[in-house]
Amino acid sequence: LEELNIQTVTLIPGDGIGPEISTAVMKIFEAAKAPIQWEERNVTAIKGPGGRWMIPPEAKESMNKNKIGLKGPLKTPIAAGHPSMNLLLRKTFDLYANVRPCVSIEGYKTPYTDVDLVTIRENTEGEYSGIEHLIVDGVVQSIKLITEEASRRIAKYAFEYARNNQRTSVTAVHKANIMRMSDGLFLRKCREVAENYKDVKFTEMYLDTVCLNMVQDPSHFDILVMPNLYGDILSDLCAGLIGGLGVTPSGNIGANGVAIFESVHGTAPDIAGKDLANPTALLLSAVMMLRHMGLHGHAKKIETACFDTIRDEKVLTKDLGGNAKCSEFTADICRRVQDMD
Amino acid sequence: LEELNIQTVTLIPGDGIGPEISTAVMKIFEAAKAPIQWEERNVTAIKGPGGRWMIPPEAKESMNKNKIGLKGPLKTPIAAGHPSMNLLLRKTFDLYANVRPCVSIEGYKTPYTDVDLVTIRENTEGEYSGIEHLIVDGVVQSIKLITEEASRRIAKYAFEYARNNQRTSVTAVHKANIMRMSDGLFLRKCREVAENYKDVKFTEMYLDTVCLNMVQDPSHFDILVMPNLYGDILSDLCAGLIGGLGVTPSGNIGANGVAIFESVHGTAPDIAGKDLANPTALLLSAVMMLRHMGLHGHAKKIETACFDTIRDEKVLTKDLGGNAKCSEFTADICRRVQDMD
Ligand SMILES: CC(C)[C@H](C(=O)O)[C@@H](O)C(=O)O
Ligand SMILES: CC(C)[C@H](C(=O)O)[C@@H](O)C(=O)O
Repeated sequence: LEELNIQTVTLIPGDGIGPEISTAVMKIFEAAKAPIQWEERNVTAIKGPGGRWMIPPEAKESMNKNKIGLKGPLKTPIAAGHPSMNLLLRKTFDLYANVRPCVSIEGYKTPYTDVDLVTIRENTEGEYSGIEHLIVDGVVQSIKLITEEASRRIAKYAFEYARNNQRTSVTAVHKANIMRMSDGLFLRKCREVAENYKDVKFTEMYLDTVCLNMVQDPSHFDILVMPNLYGDILSDLCAGLIGGLGVTPSGNIGANGVAIFESVHGTAPDIAGKDLANPTALLLSAVMMLRHMGLHGHAKKIETACFDTIRDEKVLTKDLGGNAKCSEFTADICRRVQDMD
Repeated sequence: LEELNIQTVTLIPGDGIGPEISTAVMKIFEAAKAPIQWEERNVTAIKGPGGRWMIPPEAKESMNKNKIGLKGPLKTPIAAGHPSMNLLLRKTFDLYANVRPCVSIEGYKTPYTDVDLVTIRENTEGEYSGIEHLIVDGVVQSIKLITEEASRRIAKYAFEYARNNQRTSVTAVHKANIMRMSDGLFLRKCREVAENYKDVKFTEMYLDTVCLNMVQDPSHFDILVMPNLYGDILSDLCAGLIGGLGVTPSGNIGANGVAIFESVHGTAPDIAGKDLANPTALLLSAVMMLRHMGLHGHAKKIETACFDTIRDEKVLTKDLGGNAKCSEFTADICRRVQDMD
């Protein structure tokens, strides 16, 4: 049934190892007969009217039409005044929720074996407002902006996510003991939204306490929701617990179903083009994408094949502890996917 | 030689388990013949002229006279408008550097065995400015304030600490890719100060990257210096790596030798008065204090005895995995200290 409607997804292969790992994902999707067709687009920013940096119109139109994107790593722009591409994409498509499920991967050893949590980061405001001033010589202020609307929206997203993904608790992460008004507002909105989701347990925790408890025993955490900067920090910390950015998927969700799923690791220029890259993070992001599109059967199949390959330990890329090429790792997953039919 | 001058230290036993663990420290200091005499003071805030909360004058005078304080946990004030006592103390005595050495403790199992780092947190400004505004209904801003002076001062402290403690590298932790002006200023001052300490290696890292790398392999880190909020987060994270706040010492350093050393765990009201508390964090803070005062021989002796008792695993408090009372744990350390003579 899932096969019937072929949907088009905007593919942004990205820089460095981006094209190789994108090819890997496309091959695995083909083997799994996922009903997806790809529309490839480049997002290298261009200067628009008034000298403003913007996403090229072909990429923007493609995303606006397809609503769903998959994106590889992008190199950090070096031109002065050039914005981070990640920030520009979040802004252009109002991708207000950054979602990162962190689940321990069987067979990939880290100090932790039972991580199963999701960080949900407010992606549009907070410390990322970009508003800064020089007050007097030697005194600078940066403004952290928290709004009722964005706080309510992200809280609601977290609780909906809990319901739709059979999760049982949401923890709001904050420093309202210090930033009483801003984090206080964020927290108040979380509390209000929680009232409408009595089936989901709601708790509140200080960011510092979360960090401390997280490295001591991450198994207690479920869904964590928080303002922008705290999410930047915690999502990376949690990725570290399960093996790093090379195995952690990520999704940026906007209103009306718009979403971009991406691997958040770098472009690894040193190994680019050498068939040595690990496509796991992009593949698991693509699996998140399938779930977002309601294609749960295909998602499960690909995810299982990927985890089986890793658990089996026979065909692993170098960063995962093996010496297989990217194409060999990919072929092993393809074979498993096909064997499931 | 260290014995000759007896110095007076202000002792703030604190609330809950504070008095018990303070007694433990005093006993161990006596056994070690540390040339310290204690001046006990209460710091429960009082309302001063104009309704401002302030430290009681006897405590303030004692600190101003002695310059050095040792402090147990204080309960969180519940009166409306009552400031955090920790913040009030930092402010009253301009304790601009919060220093937390995190070193793996042999015999106390955590997922990490080779942590040996120091977090140095700017303690007076940044996100803790307390300046917040309601812009319009539903829109709040908090101001993060970074000054050249405070940034230079903390950077200098970090490099001096490196030199005086045989450490080889200082890493500035920042998000200057997002907060270009404020974190940018902090970073610039670190770079400038680094120029004067060519014997110490200087590096810069994003806060999110530090968190990720920290949980994957903390052994690479040495001294980390950073603005207030980042320090709040990282110091707790690092404490988690070595076993939590129950075993992590902390010092708050001001100008002209003024300093307060403290355990940063809570008051544990559930076990208070039952002779069950673990005095390790306060004891190791007192050891930091001895080093700060130049009493390296006594510091080494007490630290060794404490670590020996923990490594031996025979007389441990409950939180450390044993079933000894606080007084038994204390007696074991005293015996070892005396055996060293
Ligand atoms: C690249 C950078 C702007 C970004 C951030 O700070 O948000 C990154 O760390 C992330 O988490 O996507
Ligand atoms: C108690 C609180 C104000 C404090 C802080 O946020 O700085 C605490 O977390 C600390 O680290 O000392």
